[in-house]
Amino acid sequence: MKCTCAPLLLLLGSFAPLSLLAQQNETKLPPQATEFYEPQVKVVSPGNENHLPPADAMVLFGGSDLNAWVSERDGSFPKWTVEDGILTVAPKTGGIKTKEAFGDVQVHIEWRAPEEVVGDGQGRGNSGFFFMGKYELQILDSYNNETYSNGQAASIYKQHPPLVNAMRAPGEWNTYDAVFTAPRFNQNGMLIAPARITVFHNGILVQNNVELRGPTQYIGIPHYVAHPEKLPFHIQDHSNPVSFRNIWVRKLD
Amino acid sequence: MKCTCAPLLLLLGSFAPLSLLAQQNETKLPPQATEFYEPQVKVVSPGNENHLPPADAMVLFGGSDLNAWVSERDGSFPKWTVEDGILTVAPKTGGIKTKEAFGDVQVHIEWRAPEEVVGDGQGRGNSGFFFMGKYELQILDSYNNETYSNGQAASIYKQHPPLVNAMRAPGEWNTYDAVFTAPRFNQNGMLIAPARITVFHNGILVQNNVELRGPTQYIGIPHYVAHPEKLPFHIQDHSNPVSFRNIWVRKLD
Amino acid sequence: MKCTCAPLLLLLGSFAPLSLLAQQNETKLPPQATEFYEPQVKVVSPGNENHLPPADAMVLFGGSDLNAWVSERDGSFPKWTVEDGILTVAPKTGGIKTKEAFGDVQVHIEWRAPEEVVGDGQGRGNSGFFFMGKYELQILDSYNNETYSNGQAASIYKQHPPLVNAMRAPGEWNTYDAVFTAPRFNQNGMLIAPARITVFHNGILVQNNVELRGPTQYIGIPHYVAHPEKLPFHIQDHSNPVSFRNIWVRKLD
Amino acid sequence: MKCTCAPLLLLLGSFAPLSLLAQQNETKLPPQATEFYEPQVKVVSPGNENHLPPADAMVLFGGSDLNAWVSERDGSFPKWTVEDGILTVAPKTGGIKTKEAFGDVQVHIEWRAPEEVVGDGQGRGNSGFFFMGKYELQILDSYNNETYSNGQAASIYKQHPPLVNAMRAPGEWNTYDAVFTAPRFNQNGMLIAPARITVFHNGILVQNNVELRGPTQYIGIPHYVAHPEKLPFHIQDHSNPVSFRNIWVRKLD
Repeated sequence: MKCTCAPLLLLLGSFAPLSLLAQQNETKLPPQATEFYEPQVKVVSPGNENHLPPADAMVLFGGSDLNAWVSERDGSFPKWTVEDGILTVAPKTGGIKTKEAFGDVQVHIEWRAPEEVVGDGQGRGNSGFFFMGKYELQILDSYNNETYSNGQAASIYKQHPPLVNAMRAPGEWNTYDAVFTAPRFNQNGMLIAPARITVFHNGILVQNNVELRGPTQYIGIPHYVAHPEKLPFHIQDHSNPVSFRNIWVRKLD
Repeated sequence: MKCTCAPLLLLLGSFAPLSLLAQQNETKLPPQATEFYEPQVKVVSPGNENHLPPADAMVLFGGSDLNAWVSERDGSFPKWTVEDGILTVAPKTGGIKTKEAFGDVQVHIEWRAPEEVVGDGQGRGNSGFFFMGKYELQILDSYNNETYSNGQAASIYKQHPPLVNAMRAPGEWNTYDAVFTAPRFNQNGMLIAPARITVFHNGILVQNNVELRGPTQYIGIPHYVAHPEKLPFHIQDHSNPVSFRNIWVRKLD
Repeated sequence: MKCTCAPLLLLLGSFAPLSLLAQQNETKLPPQATEFYEPQVKVVSPGNENHLPPADAMVLFGGSDLNAWVSERDGSFPKWTVEDGILTVAPKTGGIKTKEAFGDVQVHIEWRAPEEVVGDGQGRGNSGFFFMGKYELQILDSYNNETYSNGQAASIYKQHPPLVNAMRAPGEWNTYDAVFTAPRFNQNGMLIAPARITVFHNGILVQNNVELRGPTQYIGIPHYVAHPEKLPFHIQDHSNPVSFRNIWVRKLD
Repeated sequence: MKCTCAPLLLLLGSFAPLSLLAQQNETKLPPQATEFYEPQVKVVSPGNENHLPPADAMVLFGGSDLNAWVSERDGSFPKWTVEDGILTVAPKTGGIKTKEAFGDVQVHIEWRAPEEVVGDGQGRGNSGFFFMGKYELQILDSYNNETYSNGQAASIYKQHPPLVNAMRAPGEWNTYDAVFTAPRFNQNGMLIAPARITVFHNGILVQNNVELRGPTQYIGIPHYVAHPEKLPFHIQDHSNPVSFRNIWVRKLD
């Protein structure tokens, strides 16, 4: 800015005609008027690379163990395999869920469809990440693999197709960066703010703050019924050996 | 910015320490700084009573004729009856639609279920107001009349139940005051902003800026496919002699 | 609907080719699939006229007394006058606030600028309704009375001008029907959902679910700092004898 | 609807009592009912790494030239330097703007504050990316550098502080991944949908679909006035040699 401060003095001085002051555009203000120091912004060191967990993230799977998770079936230690820093679904052993419950979050997930292509449509490289155990961000090998639009990778399963199909080839790693806002209900159990989600698939916007229509339904239509404010994440065992790494979450609420 | 603006310091109180300036709350500004004269706000005379059309409204049914409407079936003049200033569905003659197309709107509708109760559930006092010919605000005699939550009066049919059931008795007039925002699609035909609606039923909030899930479906689930920015309103003939009066619209886009 | 139910039987029967089923549009479903009975919708009787309090409203001023209010200054009984069922500001006695605190609400207010016009601009028929004691819906005699756009009647004071000026003449009653959603903050005190408001002035949409920028500021700019989830309403004493009647609120959260 | 569809009863289990049918959850549907193939989802190959431009991106600066840009001052070829694939502000030569105009977009920017720290507060490593030439995403060396919350790196300048400070050290590369939605105005020039933005700074959510309050103002408060639907991006010359690489944009509208 050209600091033309001297006239400011005069303008706001006692002889300024009211008509001049009346128009905001003509009023010269100190820029400090619109500078705020509260609330203070917390410093959070990013990871060395953007996909690595920032300082305030909770690592849900960092490569070594499944201590943050239990089996969806019976709460026991999950039977999924961890090898070379990679987590892989052990088909038919059931899904896994976090010990901790979450509401509004940012989540980073890396996942890979099996390099050897087996099956097609929904039968190929299928899993899913469930926010609150209810709202599914679809995981599927959608690389040259036809299926319904609202069931492909990065769809909100059976609710919102992704804006584009940004899939990498089988055996290559995909990333999801998602921001999820939990729904709110009033005291009558009526929905007053639906869940919302933004998703980037391999760095490409695929869901832009879309409203979720209710918990994911494979059969029938989604429909909200009041539930707790925080609930665990689930990852689906859909009988395909999908792999994962670098799963971390930041709490936003 | 580096410009430390010495004269400013003087203006704001010659001995003010910097720490004082740093905080917006302590900076004394002329209140005119936050007063804007542009854009100018258009004057619109309200009706003599709130339910009557304001000066900028287009009256779609004012009591005398159906000149703003045509038959949904074949574009001919509608066969619905107009008597004593009241419009009534002529059952089995088909729905009606406006000659003009609309996008974002405020709509006022008064409607009445037949005083003599015939039928029940969806078979009693059923009609519907369709924004863009596609998005139905349900009209139904929901006074002591059990039906599914997302199909009762003031529901967005098969999408959103009303927050409460604010129905008046058969033969009494109900009002809907609704604000509808049309959906937007991008050049790939993908939805980038869903339709939204706010509705008051008899003065009570029943839909609070909810997102529509796509065009109303009686069978199956709603699903967006790109369509024009403006389309006519439709009113449904559901074989029940529902009556209407004072239908007006204000364009918001 | 033409009830072509017989083919449905066959279609879903054992010989239906998969390709037929694959396309939702071609699948014939029972309409019941999209009919929900939960959550049950609470019945709320509307007032005899739309501006009168519905059965679930809390009446804040019904014409007889100020028992729901205290003085903003010292919590004592307000000195404003109640006469012929009308509440009038007693200039210079200070604002009033509700005993009860509120979050998300629907509010109905009727107000009247003095019939005898005194002053101009912000000095004429000025008061204000403050949601949470912080967010002002402006009350002003804006009938043929020039002032800044974002300070006229039905503005969110110094934040959002009304979409149109729907003012009635001095001495006539105006109504505001407003839906307010309280802001939300996270554990770091950062804003995660701003306050929002929808307002109808004399039945005309003037604010359509706009975001509030922070608590109203006469001087300086609005700025959110974390505050409680529920707080009392305030009505301003701006030294003008503005009158009120029929003030009621419905809790939405 | 009155069609009682006798065959339907048979289909769903011939002896099913009506009460069974009434509840959606108990209706057995084919899962295909909620599978959609339209709209078809366009395939977009992601970059080899997530920060590299996807197949549908327009590269605004890829390392070799400034052909997509002109000088803000006079439309001439920009005087900023390009060396070793890096673009650097040539202080005092003025900002640059794109030849092409944009509306709703996803933008990726990498930027670096000078390794040698000079100055402090707003005088250190300052630049800015302006959507539509009007809405500034702040660029500043905010690493251990105190300034006002709503003016630090990743703020929407003087409107929204970032949720956290995710800054890397001087001389290291930062990334912004942003999704911007342009504002909409009606025919009276009134705002009907404000601009919105989501931003990730080094992979960390810092702005979650926040509403912009109007074009950025250094002095005074932001305020919307109707403008075209598409306008060029600008990058600010704030007299500091800030560097850039990998600037690309995807059109979302």
